[in-house]
Amino acid sequence: MEELVSRIQKDGNVLGEGVLKVDSFVTHQVDPELMEKMGARFAEVFAESGITKVVTIEASGIAPALYAAKQLNVPMIFARKAKSLTMDEELLTSSVYSFTKQVTSTISISRKFLSNEDKVLIIDDFLANGQAAKGLIELCRQAGAQVEGVGIVIEKSFQDGRQLLEDMGIRVVSLARIASLADGEVAFREADA
Amino acid sequence: MEELVSRIQKDGNVLGEGVLKVDSFVTHQVDPELMEKMGARFAEVFAESGITKVVTIEASGIAPALYAAKQLNVPMIFARKAKSLTMDEELLTSSVYSFTKQVTSTISISRKFLSNEDKVLIIDDFLANGQAAKGLIELCRQAGAQVEGVGIVIEKSFQDGRQLLEDMGIRVVSLARIASLADGEVAFREADA
Repeated sequence: MEELVSRIQKDGNVLGEGVLKVDSFVTHQVDPELMEKMGARFAEVFAESGITKVVTIEASGIAPALYAAKQLNVPMIFARKAKSLTMDEELLTSSVYSFTKQVTSTISISRKFLSNEDKVLIIDDFLANGQAAKGLIELCRQAGAQVEGVGIVIEKSFQDGRQLLEDMGIRVVSLARIASLADGEVAFREADA
Repeated sequence: MEELVSRIQKDGNVLGEGVLKVDSFVTHQVDPELMEKMGARFAEVFAESGITKVVTIEASGIAPALYAAKQLNVPMIFARKAKSLTMDEELLTSSVYSFTKQVTSTISISRKFLSNEDKVLIIDDFLANGQAAKGLIELCRQAGAQVEGVGIVIEKSFQDGRQLLEDMGIRVVSLARIASLADGEVAFREADA
């Protein structure tokens, strides 16, 4: 997506060790207009997939997922990283290993919100090792729901997340694909949409 | 807001100990259309306040804050509950005590996103004891920003959060105000908008 790539070139910052910082428009401060356009793009790509739910994980995935869900006219569900006080009923749970934090955390969705009649579009802000997306796919599959695809705002194509998801039979649609962050420069490859 | 009140009556569940569960349309599964309407309502109320930033806290505040920001044509910032890997620069921080969890946590916003030229609308999903909103107000004031008001989706008017904020000189606008959750029933009082 041209506008996203331009924005990353303009406002993204490369930190050491393969980190791309987009906290001025995606992960901390959020540009609602760009989010709406990205949500619309995801909705367009998956318009014929019969999506019934959009699923993401708190917190940075919520904005693009919300606009995709709005466009598709379906509910959005965000998986929780910790059990909340009022999540008292049966949960779908999955373990997600974070390579950056080197910890395994549990993510969960209330079972009542996903069923074997659902067709799910998973949305997240970043795809790197693919562990978060894999965890979300596992939650959906526990419920018997069909995952129609994973929509990603920024894919780090030099990490193996995309391969992992494709090996699970999942369609991946990334709006920006980063080939490399070497020498403090963002090098792109052709995006999916 | 009539539509929100109806939805709470239809889909809200009262748990023991003053907990109102709205996880099917606000706090876990999210109704994008309702969120858009609520965001528009906040934007309408604060249309003449010269808002430059909408501020919320992850995760349930993001959806209504995003739509309010979209309508006001300004960025949305969500405060983080824990320091993230890529938040390496100077932070505004504040402590928030949770009565339900009985723990104090630190919330933060990167200093670069708020300045003394900002006029802030704070949005959150719930107002109970007011500790989260108070923490967000403190972050804004640390930056010298002016808090023009706090917009709340659901206020528990039987707790003292609203009074706390008003004592700080803050305007509070709640789309639904809950007078009582006694006997498993939701009793409303007149909302602000």
